[in-house]
Amino acid sequence: MANKKQNYNHVKLYRKKLPARTVERLSKYRRLLERYSLQSENYIYSHDLGRLLNLTSVQVRRDLMLIGISGNHRKGYNIKELIEQINKIIDTEHGHNITIVGMGNLGRAVTKFIQYNQSKMNIVAGFDLDPKKTGKKIAGVNCYQIGTITKKIRELEIDVAILTVSPDAAVDVTRILVGAGIKGILNFTSVHLDVPSDIYLKNYDIITSLDEIGFFIK
Amino acid sequence: MANKKQNYNHVKLYRKKLPARTVERLSKYRRLLERYSLQSENYIYSHDLGRLLNLTSVQVRRDLMLIGISGNHRKGYNIKELIEQINKIIDTEHGHNITIVGMGNLGRAVTKFIQYNQSKMNIVAGFDLDPKKTGKKIAGVNCYQIGTITKKIRELEIDVAILTVSPDAAVDVTRILVGAGIKGILNFTSVHLDVPSDIYLKNYDIITSLDEIGFFIK
Repeated sequence: MANKKQNYNHVKLYRKKLPARTVERLSKYRRLLERYSLQSENYIYSHDLGRLLNLTSVQVRRDLMLIGISGNHRKGYNIKELIEQINKIIDTEHGHNITIVGMGNLGRAVTKFIQYNQSKMNIVAGFDLDPKKTGKKIAGVNCYQIGTITKKIRELEIDVAILTVSPDAAVDVTRILVGAGIKGILNFTSVHLDVPSDIYLKNYDIITSLDEIGFFIK
Repeated sequence: MANKKQNYNHVKLYRKKLPARTVERLSKYRRLLERYSLQSENYIYSHDLGRLLNLTSVQVRRDLMLIGISGNHRKGYNIKELIEQINKIIDTEHGHNITIVGMGNLGRAVTKFIQYNQSKMNIVAGFDLDPKKTGKKIAGVNCYQIGTITKKIRELEIDVAILTVSPDAAVDVTRILVGAGIKGILNFTSVHLDVPSDIYLKNYDIITSLDEIGFFIK
């Protein structure tokens, strides 16, 4: 019991000091390693892991030191242990419950993408305005009327929302999500959202990204 | 004629020194302003533009100075002139030709999203492996067999690809795209891509972003 508590304190300690970039890389290491372990490899060297992600082996070793893992000089890192430690650090025990808000083309496609790629998050609800979509399962997910969203978010303990509504609805829906207690938003609408500082907002602004690509390649 | 050339040289000069963040913001200003001008407003103040995007008015004025525009103290910025100057700076004359590689759920949804949001880019082709999808129009875009991709990219002068293939195909398809002369890639596959330094690669890694959101909200 004491040992368990100590472990937990360690994990908390590691978590505290991780910057966003490190968390991003840990997520990528994990995805690669899961593929590796399917191929029945037991160990991997930092330079191999680095090479697969265009990182230096120094960077890889530094990241893994930050979560309390050091490799074996001869054999490298034990893949199973590494995956387990990354799980402990970046996941919560039961995973987060997430919702797709806007079950149009993009919402459905993102739902299927997440299911296919086995994210650690549980998609527990979808929301839409269109009565043709609500009251049934879409891509395996219960789709509810958007009018019930505050109630459902609390009932289903959802803390992350993926926003795939039409641009016109983005600002209003976000206000409702924040009011209902959502803590993280992945915003696909290409609309600028103004959220309180305790909300973790990530923007996937396709139109701006295309402008940016277009500018830098000409 | 001399005047035209001088203008062109100015535009080239402005372009040269713009960092990615500025280009991003210019793209966002333009999108907002286009909405504004629909509402038949003629002028906007830097602090209004800033407020709508959570930026300081100083930041807005600095960005617009970088493209050679200074506002009128009393009236603010002329919206029409501002949009035109941003067009001149960040667009090419005829727009870029882009392709959606992988016309599954996500590819089709992204195609429709880009059309709906009136990007300055022209989607001129889609590609897929599935013979049920090829040889016809999908979401208004001609969908070709992926085997013809190198030929078609050259023929249609495509320089940007949006990658929505399955993860297993991502690395191989990217190699083909680069070989065919693609200069910019928006990668939706959540697979790490290793491209030459002259390719402008932008990653939309949904799985990693969800891990990151999950980590920082707990």
